[in-house]
Amino acid sequence: MASYDFDRATAVTSAGEGRFVGAVSPDWTIGAGPNGGYMVSIALSALARTLPQPDPFAITAHFVSRAAFSPVEIPVEVVRLGRGLSTGVARLEQEGRTKVHVTATFGDLDTMDGPTIVQGEAPAIEPLEECVPASRRKFSPFTERFDLRLTPDSAAWAKGRPTGVPEVAGWIRFADGREPDAASLAQFADAFPPTAFNLFEGVGWVPTIELTVHVRARPAPGWLRCRFRTRFVTRGYLEEDGEIWDAAGRLVALSRQMARVNVPA
Amino acid sequence: MASYDFDRATAVTSAGEGRFVGAVSPDWTIGAGPNGGYMVSIALSALARTLPQPDPFAITAHFVSRAAFSPVEIPVEVVRLGRGLSTGVARLEQEGRTKVHVTATFGDLDTMDGPTIVQGEAPAIEPLEECVPASRRKFSPFTERFDLRLTPDSAAWAKGRPTGVPEVAGWIRFADGREPDAASLAQFADAFPPTAFNLFEGVGWVPTIELTVHVRARPAPGWLRCRFRTRFVTRGYLEEDGEIWDAAGRLVALSRQMARVNVPA
Repeated sequence: MASYDFDRATAVTSAGEGRFVGAVSPDWTIGAGPNGGYMVSIALSALARTLPQPDPFAITAHFVSRAAFSPVEIPVEVVRLGRGLSTGVARLEQEGRTKVHVTATFGDLDTMDGPTIVQGEAPAIEPLEECVPASRRKFSPFTERFDLRLTPDSAAWAKGRPTGVPEVAGWIRFADGREPDAASLAQFADAFPPTAFNLFEGVGWVPTIELTVHVRARPAPGWLRCRFRTRFVTRGYLEEDGEIWDAAGRLVALSRQMARVNVPA
Repeated sequence: MASYDFDRATAVTSAGEGRFVGAVSPDWTIGAGPNGGYMVSIALSALARTLPQPDPFAITAHFVSRAAFSPVEIPVEVVRLGRGLSTGVARLEQEGRTKVHVTATFGDLDTMDGPTIVQGEAPAIEPLEECVPASRRKFSPFTERFDLRLTPDSAAWAKGRPTGVPEVAGWIRFADGREPDAASLAQFADAFPPTAFNLFEGVGWVPTIELTVHVRARPAPGWLRCRFRTRFVTRGYLEEDGEIWDAAGRLVALSRQMARVNVPA
Protein backbone atom coordinates (compact mmCIF):
# COMPACT_ATOMS: atom_id res chain seq x y z
CA MET A 1 0.00 0.00 0.00
CA ALA A 2 1.31 3.42 -0.92
CA SER A 3 2.34 5.41 2.14
CA TYR A 4 1.58 8.89 0.89
CA ASP A 5 -1.67 10.66 0.10
CA PHE A 6 -0.71 11.51 -3.47
CA ASP A 7 0.26 7.95 -4.35
CA ARG A 8 -2.85 6.50 -2.78
CA ALA A 9 -5.15 9.02 -4.43
CA THR A 10 -3.66 8.53 -7.90
CA ALA A 11 -3.30 4.74 -7.78
CA VAL A 12 -4.94 2.74 -10.54
CA THR A 13 -5.70 -0.96 -10.87
CA SER A 14 -5.52 -2.94 -14.06
CA ALA A 15 -8.94 -3.91 -15.39
CA GLY A 16 -7.72 -5.88 -18.38
CA GLU A 17 -5.82 -5.05 -21.54
CA GLY A 18 -5.56 -1.27 -22.00
CA ARG A 19 -7.94 -0.51 -19.17
CA PHE A 20 -7.47 0.72 -15.62
CA VAL A 21 -9.76 1.79 -12.84
CA GLY A 22 -9.17 4.38 -10.16
CA ALA A 23 -11.18 6.73 -8.02
CA VAL A 24 -11.47 10.49 -7.83
CA SER A 25 -10.90 11.24 -4.16
CA PRO A 26 -12.84 14.04 -2.44
CA ASP A 27 -9.61 14.80 -0.54
CA TRP A 28 -8.41 16.61 -3.66
CA THR A 29 -11.43 18.90 -3.98
CA ILE A 30 -10.81 22.53 -4.75
CA GLY A 31 -13.97 24.60 -4.78
CA ALA A 32 -16.70 22.44 -6.27
CA GLY A 33 -14.63 19.85 -8.12
CA PRO A 34 -11.47 17.80 -8.17
CA ASN A 35 -8.27 19.68 -8.93
CA GLY A 36 -7.16 19.43 -12.56
CA GLY A 37 -3.52 18.55 -11.89
CA TYR A 38 -4.72 15.77 -9.63
CA MET A 39 -6.91 14.34 -12.40
CA VAL A 40 -3.97 14.46 -14.82
CA SER A 41 -1.86 12.61 -12.28
CA ILE A 42 -4.35 9.73 -12.20
CA ALA A 43 -4.08 9.50 -15.98
CA LEU A 44 -0.27 9.53 -15.74
CA SER A 45 -0.41 6.61 -13.29
CA ALA A 46 -2.20 4.56 -15.93
CA LEU A 47 0.23 5.64 -18.66
CA ALA A 48 3.26 4.88 -16.49
CA ARG A 49 2.01 1.31 -16.21
CA THR A 50 1.48 1.08 -19.95
CA LEU A 51 4.51 2.70 -21.57
CA PRO A 52 8.03 1.28 -21.26
CA GLN A 53 9.78 4.53 -20.29
CA PRO A 54 9.46 5.77 -16.70
CA ASP A 55 9.01 9.54 -16.96
CA PRO A 56 6.45 11.89 -18.51
CA PHE A 57 8.31 14.35 -20.74
CA ALA A 58 5.45 16.18 -22.48
CA ILE A 59 1.95 16.06 -21.03
CA THR A 60 -1.12 17.66 -22.60
CA ALA A 61 -4.55 17.53 -21.00
CA HIS A 62 -7.89 18.77 -22.27
CA PHE A 63 -10.49 19.20 -19.53
CA VAL A 64 -13.78 18.53 -21.19
CA SER A 65 -16.24 18.23 -18.32
CA ARG A 66 -16.23 18.24 -14.58
CA ALA A 67 -15.56 14.95 -12.86
CA ALA A 68 -17.51 13.51 -9.96
CA PHE A 69 -16.02 12.03 -6.80
CA SER A 70 -16.54 8.46 -7.80
CA PRO A 71 -14.74 5.62 -9.54
CA VAL A 72 -13.14 6.42 -12.84
CA GLU A 73 -12.47 4.14 -15.77
CA ILE A 74 -9.29 4.80 -17.68
CA PRO A 75 -9.00 3.35 -21.16
CA VAL A 76 -5.41 3.73 -22.31
CA GLU A 77 -4.17 3.62 -25.88
CA VAL A 78 -0.60 3.32 -27.01
CA VAL A 79 -0.01 5.80 -29.83
CA ARG A 80 3.60 4.80 -30.41
CA LEU A 81 6.19 2.66 -28.68
CA GLY A 82 9.70 3.88 -29.35
CA ARG A 83 13.12 3.09 -27.99
CA GLY A 84 13.66 6.61 -26.69
CA LEU A 85 10.19 8.08 -26.40
CA SER A 86 6.72 6.54 -26.33
CA THR A 87 3.34 8.22 -26.50
CA GLY A 88 0.00 7.20 -25.08
CA VAL A 89 -3.48 8.50 -24.42
CA ALA A 90 -5.41 8.03 -21.18
CA ARG A 91 -9.00 9.15 -20.79
CA LEU A 92 -10.67 9.57 -17.45
CA GLU A 93 -14.23 8.36 -17.96
CA GLN A 94 -17.21 8.34 -15.65
CA GLU A 95 -20.49 6.82 -16.74
CA GLY A 96 -19.07 6.34 -20.21
CA ARG A 97 -18.23 10.01 -20.70
CA THR A 98 -14.75 11.46 -20.94
CA LYS A 99 -13.93 14.02 -18.27
CA VAL A 100 -10.24 14.59 -18.96
CA HIS A 101 -8.31 13.56 -22.06
CA VAL A 102 -4.57 13.22 -21.49
CA THR A 103 -1.86 12.54 -24.04
CA ALA A 104 1.69 12.10 -22.82
CA THR A 105 5.05 11.34 -24.32
CA PHE A 106 7.25 9.41 -21.90
CA GLY A 107 11.03 9.05 -21.87
CA ASP A 108 13.79 8.38 -19.40
CA LEU A 109 15.11 11.52 -17.73
CA ASP A 110 18.32 9.70 -16.80
CA THR A 111 19.26 9.07 -20.41
CA MET A 112 18.77 12.62 -21.70
CA ASP A 113 21.93 13.97 -23.19
CA GLY A 114 22.83 17.12 -25.02
CA PRO A 115 23.76 20.68 -24.20
CA THR A 116 22.30 22.63 -21.29
CA ILE A 117 21.95 26.40 -21.59
CA VAL A 118 19.98 28.35 -19.03
CA GLN A 119 19.09 31.88 -20.08
CA GLY A 120 16.44 32.39 -17.44
CA GLU A 121 16.98 32.51 -13.72
CA ALA A 122 15.05 30.93 -10.91
CA PRO A 123 12.28 33.31 -9.84
CA ALA A 124 13.69 35.89 -7.44
CA ILE A 125 11.18 35.41 -4.67
CA GLU A 126 11.24 36.00 -0.95
CA PRO A 127 12.83 33.27 1.15
CA LEU A 128 10.53 30.70 2.64
CA GLU A 129 10.33 32.35 6.05
CA GLU A 130 9.07 35.61 4.57
CA CYS A 131 6.32 33.91 2.61
CA VAL A 132 2.75 33.48 3.74
CA PRO A 133 1.38 30.01 4.48
CA ALA A 134 -1.63 29.57 2.20
CA SER A 135 -4.77 29.22 4.20
CA ARG A 136 -6.40 25.84 4.28
CA ARG A 137 -9.76 26.73 2.91
CA LYS A 138 -13.12 25.46 3.99
CA PHE A 139 -14.67 23.12 1.43
CA SER A 140 -11.27 22.79 -0.24
CA PRO A 141 -9.54 19.72 1.19
CA PHE A 142 -7.04 20.09 -1.67
CA THR A 143 -5.37 22.91 0.22
CA GLU A 144 -4.58 20.50 3.07
CA ARG A 145 -2.56 18.23 0.82
CA PHE A 146 0.20 20.81 0.43
CA ASP A 147 2.46 23.01 2.42
CA LEU A 148 2.22 26.12 0.25
CA ARG A 149 3.92 29.42 1.05
CA LEU A 150 2.99 32.36 -1.12
CA THR A 151 5.07 35.47 -1.61
CA PRO A 152 3.43 38.45 0.14
CA ASP A 153 2.38 39.98 -3.21
CA SER A 154 0.93 36.68 -4.41
CA ALA A 155 -1.18 36.44 -1.29
CA ALA A 156 -2.49 40.02 -1.48
CA TRP A 157 -5.82 38.96 -3.01
CA ALA A 158 -6.56 36.85 0.07
CA LYS A 159 -6.70 40.07 2.09
CA GLY A 160 -9.07 41.63 -0.42
CA ARG A 161 -6.31 43.69 -2.02
CA PRO A 162 -5.56 42.18 -5.44
CA THR A 163 -2.31 43.69 -6.71
CA GLY A 164 -3.45 43.95 -10.32
CA VAL A 165 -0.39 41.92 -11.28
CA PRO A 166 -1.50 38.49 -12.49
CA GLU A 167 1.32 36.56 -10.88
CA VAL A 168 1.53 34.02 -8.07
CA ALA A 169 4.77 32.64 -6.75
CA GLY A 170 6.06 30.79 -3.78
CA TRP A 171 7.26 27.52 -2.32
CA ILE A 172 5.44 24.21 -2.25
CA ARG A 173 5.78 20.63 -1.08
CA PHE A 174 3.39 17.86 -0.17
CA ALA A 175 2.11 18.24 3.39
CA ASP A 176 2.80 14.63 4.32
CA GLY A 177 6.48 14.63 3.46
CA ARG A 178 6.29 12.88 0.09
CA GLU A 179 9.16 14.19 -1.99
CA PRO A 180 8.51 15.62 -5.45
CA ASP A 181 9.34 13.46 -8.46
CA ALA A 182 8.81 13.62 -12.20
CA ALA A 183 5.40 11.97 -11.88
CA SER A 184 4.08 14.65 -9.51
CA LEU A 185 5.21 17.74 -11.41
CA ALA A 186 1.91 17.97 -13.31
CA GLN A 187 0.22 18.14 -9.91
CA PHE A 188 2.49 20.94 -8.69
CA ALA A 189 1.90 22.79 -11.98
CA ASP A 190 -1.75 23.15 -10.98
CA ALA A 191 -1.59 23.59 -7.21
CA PHE A 192 -1.22 27.36 -6.75
CA PRO A 193 -4.15 29.80 -6.64
CA PRO A 194 -5.04 31.21 -10.07
CA THR A 195 -3.14 34.31 -11.18
CA ALA A 196 -6.52 35.87 -11.95
CA PHE A 197 -7.19 36.21 -8.21
CA ASN A 198 -4.72 39.08 -8.23
CA LEU A 199 -6.29 40.66 -11.30
CA PHE A 200 -10.01 40.80 -10.64
CA GLU A 201 -11.97 40.99 -7.43
CA GLY A 202 -14.39 38.24 -6.65
CA VAL A 203 -13.15 35.69 -9.17
CA GLY A 204 -14.54 32.37 -8.07
CA TRP A 205 -13.66 29.86 -10.67
CA VAL A 206 -11.02 29.74 -13.36
CA PRO A 207 -11.65 26.48 -15.19
CA THR A 208 -8.71 25.09 -17.12
CA ILE A 209 -9.41 24.25 -20.74
CA GLU A 210 -6.02 22.83 -21.56
CA LEU A 211 -2.86 22.18 -19.52
CA THR A 212 0.57 21.40 -20.98
CA VAL A 213 3.50 20.38 -18.79
CA HIS A 214 7.03 19.82 -20.09
CA VAL A 215 9.28 18.00 -17.64
CA ARG A 216 13.00 18.70 -17.80
CA ALA A 217 14.56 16.94 -14.85
CA ARG A 218 13.89 14.81 -11.81
CA PRO A 219 13.43 17.23 -8.91
CA ALA A 220 15.77 17.06 -5.92
CA PRO A 221 14.09 16.39 -2.57
CA GLY A 222 12.79 19.45 -0.76
CA TRP A 223 10.79 22.52 -1.58
CA LEU A 224 9.83 23.49 -5.11
CA ARG A 225 10.08 27.14 -6.05
CA CYS A 226 7.33 28.11 -8.50
CA ARG A 227 6.06 31.10 -10.37
CA PHE A 228 2.92 31.40 -12.50
CA ARG A 229 2.31 34.39 -14.72
CA THR A 230 -0.36 35.69 -17.05
CA ARG A 231 0.30 38.35 -19.64
CA PHE A 232 -2.76 38.23 -21.84
CA VAL A 233 -6.42 38.04 -20.96
CA THR A 234 -8.43 38.01 -24.18
CA ARG A 235 -12.18 38.26 -23.83
CA GLY A 236 -12.15 36.02 -20.78
CA TYR A 237 -9.44 33.57 -21.88
CA LEU A 238 -5.97 33.66 -20.38
CA GLU A 239 -2.74 31.72 -20.21
CA GLU A 240 -0.92 30.79 -17.04
CA ASP A 241 2.75 30.14 -17.65
CA GLY A 242 4.52 28.27 -14.89
CA GLU A 243 8.09 27.52 -13.97
CA ILE A 244 8.97 24.91 -11.39
CA TRP A 245 12.48 24.90 -9.91
CA ASP A 246 13.83 22.38 -7.44
CA ALA A 247 15.77 22.77 -4.21
CA ALA A 248 19.02 22.29 -6.12
CA GLY A 249 18.24 25.37 -8.22
CA ARG A 250 17.38 23.58 -11.45
CA LEU A 251 14.41 24.16 -13.69
CA VAL A 252 12.45 20.90 -13.52
CA ALA A 253 9.29 21.76 -15.46
CA LEU A 254 7.57 24.40 -17.56
CA SER A 255 3.80 24.55 -17.66
CA ARG A 256 1.20 26.48 -19.58
CA GLN A 257 -2.52 26.39 -19.22
CA MET A 258 -5.32 28.07 -21.10
CA ALA A 259 -8.18 28.90 -18.78
CA ARG A 260 -11.35 30.90 -18.71
CA VAL A 261 -11.87 33.53 -16.06
CA ASN A 262 -15.38 34.16 -14.86
CA VAL A 263 -15.62 37.66 -13.46
CA PRO A 264 -18.67 38.71 -11.48
CA ALA A 265 -20.77 41.23 -13.40
CA MET B 1 -11.53 23.65 -55.63
CA ALA B 2 -9.59 25.65 -53.08
CA SER B 3 -7.71 28.51 -54.67
CA TYR B 4 -4.77 28.69 -52.31
CA ASP B 5 -1.83 26.36 -51.70
CA PHE B 6 -2.52 25.99 -47.98
CA ASP B 7 -6.16 25.05 -48.46
CA ARG B 8 -5.39 22.58 -51.21
CA ALA B 9 -2.54 20.97 -49.27
CA THR B 10 -4.57 20.57 -46.08
CA ALA B 11 -7.84 19.46 -47.67
CA VAL B 12 -9.36 16.21 -46.50
CA THR B 13 -12.09 14.02 -47.94
CA SER B 14 -14.61 12.09 -45.93
CA ALA B 15 -14.02 8.35 -46.02
CA GLY B 16 -17.02 7.36 -43.94
CA GLU B 17 -18.08 7.92 -40.36
CA GLY B 18 -15.20 9.37 -38.33
CA ARG B 19 -12.66 8.89 -41.07
CA PHE B 20 -11.00 11.23 -43.54
CA VAL B 21 -8.27 10.91 -46.09
CA GLY B 22 -5.75 13.51 -47.20
CA ALA B 23 -2.26 13.64 -48.60
CA VAL B 24 1.03 14.91 -47.26
CA SER B 25 2.26 17.21 -50.01
CA PRO B 26 5.99 17.39 -50.83
CA ASP B 27 5.45 21.12 -51.41
CA TRP B 28 5.57 21.51 -47.60
CA THR B 29 8.89 19.76 -47.12
CA ILE B 30 11.38 21.34 -44.78
CA GLY B 31 14.69 19.51 -44.67
CA ALA B 32 13.94 15.81 -44.95
CA GLY B 33 10.28 15.76 -43.88
CA PRO B 34 6.97 17.55 -43.93
CA ASN B 35 6.70 20.60 -41.67
CA GLY B 36 5.03 19.91 -38.34
CA GLY B 37 2.63 22.86 -38.38
CA TYR B 38 1.50 21.73 -41.81
CA MET B 39 0.74 18.24 -40.52
CA VAL B 40 -1.24 19.70 -37.63
CA SER B 41 -3.21 21.79 -40.10
CA ILE B 42 -4.31 18.67 -41.99
CA ALA B 43 -5.58 17.23 -38.71
CA LEU B 44 -7.41 20.48 -37.96
CA SER B 45 -9.15 20.27 -41.35
CA ALA B 46 -10.58 16.91 -40.35
CA LEU B 47 -11.60 18.19 -36.91
CA ALA B 48 -13.23 21.32 -38.36
CA ARG B 49 -15.48 19.03 -40.41
CA THR B 50 -16.34 16.95 -37.37
CA LEU B 51 -16.93 19.40 -34.52
CA PRO B 52 -19.83 21.89 -34.50
CA GLN B 53 -17.77 24.97 -33.56
CA PRO B 54 -15.71 26.67 -36.25
CA ASP B 55 -12.44 27.63 -34.57
CA PRO B 56 -9.59 25.77 -32.89
CA PHE B 57 -9.04 27.31 -29.43
CA ALA B 58 -6.51 24.94 -27.87
CA ILE B 59 -4.48 22.60 -30.06
CA THR B 60 -1.98 20.04 -28.78
CA ALA B 61 0.05 17.83 -31.09
CA HIS B 62 2.45 15.02 -30.31
CA PHE B 63 4.81 14.19 -33.17
CA VAL B 64 5.51 10.52 -32.80
CA SER B 65 7.23 9.56 -36.05
CA ARG B 66 8.17 11.13 -39.32
CA ALA B 67 5.53 11.16 -42.02
CA ALA B 68 6.06 10.20 -45.64
CA PHE B 69 4.86 12.17 -48.66
CA SER B 70 1.94 9.97 -49.39
CA PRO B 71 -1.75 9.65 -48.62
CA VAL B 72 -2.74 9.89 -45.01
CA GLU B 73 -5.69 8.35 -43.22
CA ILE B 74 -7.23 10.42 -40.48
CA PRO B 75 -9.43 8.67 -37.97
CA VAL B 76 -11.24 11.30 -35.92
CA GLU B 77 -12.83 10.79 -32.52
CA VAL B 78 -15.17 13.15 -30.77
CA VAL B 79 -14.14 13.42 -27.13
CA ARG B 80 -16.93 15.77 -26.14
CA LEU B 81 -19.59 17.79 -27.90
CA GLY B 82 -20.52 20.88 -25.94
CA ARG B 83 -22.58 23.97 -26.59
CA GLY B 84 -19.62 26.30 -26.15
CA LEU B 85 -16.58 24.11 -26.63
CA SER B 86 -16.07 20.71 -28.20
CA THR B 87 -13.00 18.48 -28.20
CA GLY B 88 -11.80 15.93 -30.70
CA VAL B 89 -8.79 13.84 -31.62
CA ALA B 90 -7.40 13.41 -35.13
CA ARG B 91 -4.56 11.05 -35.89
CA LEU B 92 -2.54 11.21 -39.04
CA GLU B 93 -1.84 7.63 -39.99
CA GLN B 94 0.23 6.10 -42.76
CA GLU B 95 0.36 2.35 -43.26
CA GLY B 96 -1.61 1.90 -40.08
CA ARG B 97 0.87 3.79 -37.89
CA THR B 98 0.24 7.12 -36.22
CA LYS B 99 2.60 9.89 -37.27
CA VAL B 100 1.02 12.86 -35.52
CA HIS B 101 -1.58 12.76 -32.76
CA VAL B 102 -3.62 15.96 -32.47
CA THR B 103 -6.19 16.87 -29.84
CA ALA B 104 -8.05 20.14 -30.22
CA THR B 105 -10.75 21.99 -28.37
CA PHE B 106 -12.86 24.07 -30.75
CA GLY B 107 -15.07 27.05 -30.00
CA ASP B 108 -16.41 30.12 -31.74
CA LEU B 109 -14.09 33.10 -31.56
CA ASP B 110 -16.97 35.43 -32.35
CA THR B 111 -18.87 34.49 -29.21
CA MET B 112 -16.02 34.89 -26.73
CA ASP B 113 -16.87 37.38 -24.08
CA GLY B 114 -15.18 38.55 -20.95
CA PRO B 115 -12.52 41.03 -19.94
CA THR B 116 -9.45 41.79 -22.04
CA ILE B 117 -6.24 42.81 -20.29
CA VAL B 118 -3.01 43.02 -22.21
CA GLN B 119 0.09 43.19 -20.05
CA GLY B 120 2.52 42.29 -22.80
CA GLU B 121 3.28 44.34 -25.87
CA ALA B 122 3.65 43.32 -29.46
CA PRO B 123 7.28 42.38 -30.08
CA ALA B 124 9.30 45.53 -30.77
CA ILE B 125 10.88 44.43 -34.02
CA GLU B 126 12.26 46.27 -37.02
CA PRO B 127 9.71 47.39 -39.61
CA LEU B 128 9.13 45.13 -42.55
CA GLU B 129 11.43 47.03 -44.89
CA GLU B 130 14.40 46.62 -42.54
CA CYS B 131 13.90 42.89 -42.22
CA VAL B 132 15.65 40.25 -44.29
CA PRO B 133 13.66 38.10 -46.71
CA ALA B 134 14.26 34.49 -45.65
CA SER B 135 16.06 32.61 -48.34
CA ARG B 136 14.12 30.00 -50.20
CA ARG B 137 16.20 27.00 -49.48
CA LYS B 138 17.13 24.19 -51.78
CA PHE B 139 15.35 20.95 -50.89
CA SER B 140 12.94 22.94 -48.73
CA PRO B 141 9.89 23.79 -50.83
CA PHE B 142 8.21 24.80 -47.57
CA THR B 143 10.16 28.05 -47.62
CA GLU B 144 8.49 28.96 -50.92
CA ARG B 145 5.03 28.82 -49.38
CA PHE B 146 5.67 31.93 -47.29
CA ASP B 147 6.81 35.47 -47.55
CA LEU B 148 8.97 35.54 -44.42
CA ARG B 149 11.04 38.53 -43.33
CA LEU B 150 13.40 37.99 -40.43
CA THR B 151 14.78 40.70 -38.20
CA PRO B 152 18.50 41.22 -38.89
CA ASP B 153 19.46 39.54 -35.59
CA SER B 154 17.20 36.58 -36.27
CA ALA B 155 18.83 36.04 -39.63
CA ALA B 156 22.41 36.25 -38.29
CA TRP B 157 22.86 32.47 -38.23
CA ALA B 158 22.24 32.33 -41.98
CA LYS B 159 25.48 34.27 -42.46
CA GLY B 160 27.36 31.89 -40.20
CA ARG B 161 27.24 34.28 -37.26
CA PRO B 162 24.78 32.91 -34.69
CA THR B 163 24.04 35.64 -32.16
CA GLY B 164 23.95 33.31 -29.17
CA VAL B 165 20.48 34.64 -28.42
CA PRO B 166 17.91 31.91 -29.04
CA GLU B 167 15.28 34.15 -30.56
CA VAL B 168 13.78 34.52 -34.03
CA ALA B 169 11.33 37.21 -34.95
CA GLY B 170 9.88 38.82 -38.01
CA TRP B 171 6.93 39.15 -40.34
CA ILE B 172 5.15 36.42 -42.22
CA ARG B 173 2.30 35.83 -44.66
CA PHE B 174 1.45 33.18 -47.21
CA ALA B 175 3.32 33.75 -50.47
CA ASP B 176 0.21 33.32 -52.61
CA GLY B 177 -1.88 36.00 -50.96
CA ARG B 178 -4.05 33.76 -48.78
CA GLU B 179 -4.95 35.76 -45.70
CA PRO B 180 -4.30 34.33 -42.23
CA ASP B 181 -7.24 32.93 -40.30
CA ALA B 182 -7.76 31.00 -37.09
CA ALA B 183 -7.32 27.70 -38.91
CA SER B 184 -3.86 28.62 -40.19
CA LEU B 185 -2.36 29.95 -36.94
CA ALA B 186 -0.96 26.52 -36.02
CA GLN B 187 0.87 26.60 -39.34
CA PHE B 188 2.34 30.04 -38.67
CA ALA B 189 3.35 28.90 -35.19
CA ASP B 190 5.77 26.45 -36.81
CA ALA B 191 6.98 28.33 -39.89
CA PHE B 192 10.00 30.26 -38.63
CA PRO B 193 13.53 28.83 -38.44
CA PRO B 194 14.30 27.21 -35.07
CA THR B 195 15.62 29.50 -32.34
CA ALA B 196 18.43 26.98 -31.86
CA PHE B 197 19.98 28.12 -35.15
CA ASN B 198 21.09 31.25 -33.32
CA LEU B 199 22.43 29.30 -30.37
CA PHE B 200 24.58 26.54 -31.82
CA GLU B 201 26.54 26.33 -35.04
CA GLY B 202 25.69 23.59 -37.46
CA VAL B 203 22.33 22.60 -35.99
CA GLY B 204 20.60 20.63 -38.69
CA TRP B 205 17.43 19.32 -37.24
CA VAL B 206 15.31 20.34 -34.28
CA PRO B 207 12.49 17.80 -34.20
CA THR B 208 9.37 18.90 -32.36
CA ILE B 209 8.14 16.49 -29.73
CA GLU B 210 5.02 18.41 -28.76
CA LEU B 211 3.39 21.61 -30.03
CA THR B 212 0.65 23.52 -28.22
CA VAL B 213 -1.15 26.47 -29.84
CA HIS B 214 -3.71 28.62 -28.06
CA VAL B 215 -5.75 30.79 -30.40
CA ARG B 216 -7.10 34.07 -29.03
CA ALA B 217 -8.61 35.92 -31.96
CA ARG B 218 -9.28 35.81 -35.68
CA PRO B 219 -6.33 37.57 -37.32
CA ALA B 220 -6.90 40.67 -39.43
CA PRO B 221 -5.78 40.43 -43.05
CA GLY B 222 -2.14 41.27 -43.70
CA TRP B 223 1.21 40.46 -42.19
CA LEU B 224 1.60 38.59 -38.93
CA ARG B 225 4.26 39.79 -36.52
CA CYS B 226 5.86 36.87 -34.67
CA ARG B 227 8.51 36.18 -32.09
CA PHE B 228 9.82 32.82 -30.88
CA ARG B 229 12.04 32.55 -27.84
CA THR B 230 13.90 29.88 -25.93
CA ARG B 231 15.11 30.35 -22.40
CA PHE B 232 16.03 26.87 -21.27
CA VAL B 233 17.93 24.14 -23.04
CA THR B 234 18.13 21.13 -20.73
CA ARG B 235 20.34 18.29 -21.87
CA GLY B 236 19.22 18.73 -25.46
CA TYR B 237 15.56 19.56 -24.85
CA LEU B 238 14.24 23.06 -25.25
CA GLU B 239 11.04 25.07 -25.40
CA GLU B 240 10.14 27.53 -28.14
CA ASP B 241 7.59 30.06 -26.97
CA GLY B 242 5.83 31.96 -29.71
CA GLU B 243 3.63 35.00 -29.94
CA ILE B 244 1.65 35.79 -33.07
CA TRP B 245 0.24 39.29 -33.49
CA ASP B 246 -1.91 40.48 -36.36
CA ALA B 247 -1.77 43.57 -38.54
CA ALA B 248 -4.29 45.28 -36.26
CA GLY B 249 -1.87 44.93 -33.32
CA ARG B 250 -3.73 42.21 -31.47
CA LEU B 251 -2.30 39.04 -30.00
CA VAL B 252 -3.94 36.25 -32.00
CA ALA B 253 -2.10 33.16 -30.73
CA LEU B 254 0.42 31.87 -28.22
CA SER B 255 2.44 28.78 -29.01
CA ARG B 256 4.88 26.57 -27.18
CA GLN B 257 6.79 23.62 -28.46
CA MET B 258 9.12 21.16 -26.81
CA ALA B 259 11.83 20.10 -29.20
CA ARG B 260 15.12 18.28 -29.22
CA VAL B 261 18.20 19.98 -30.56
CA ASN B 262 20.80 17.82 -32.24
CA VAL B 263 24.15 19.56 -32.06
CA PRO B 264 27.06 18.26 -34.11
CA ALA B 265 29.75 16.71 -31.90
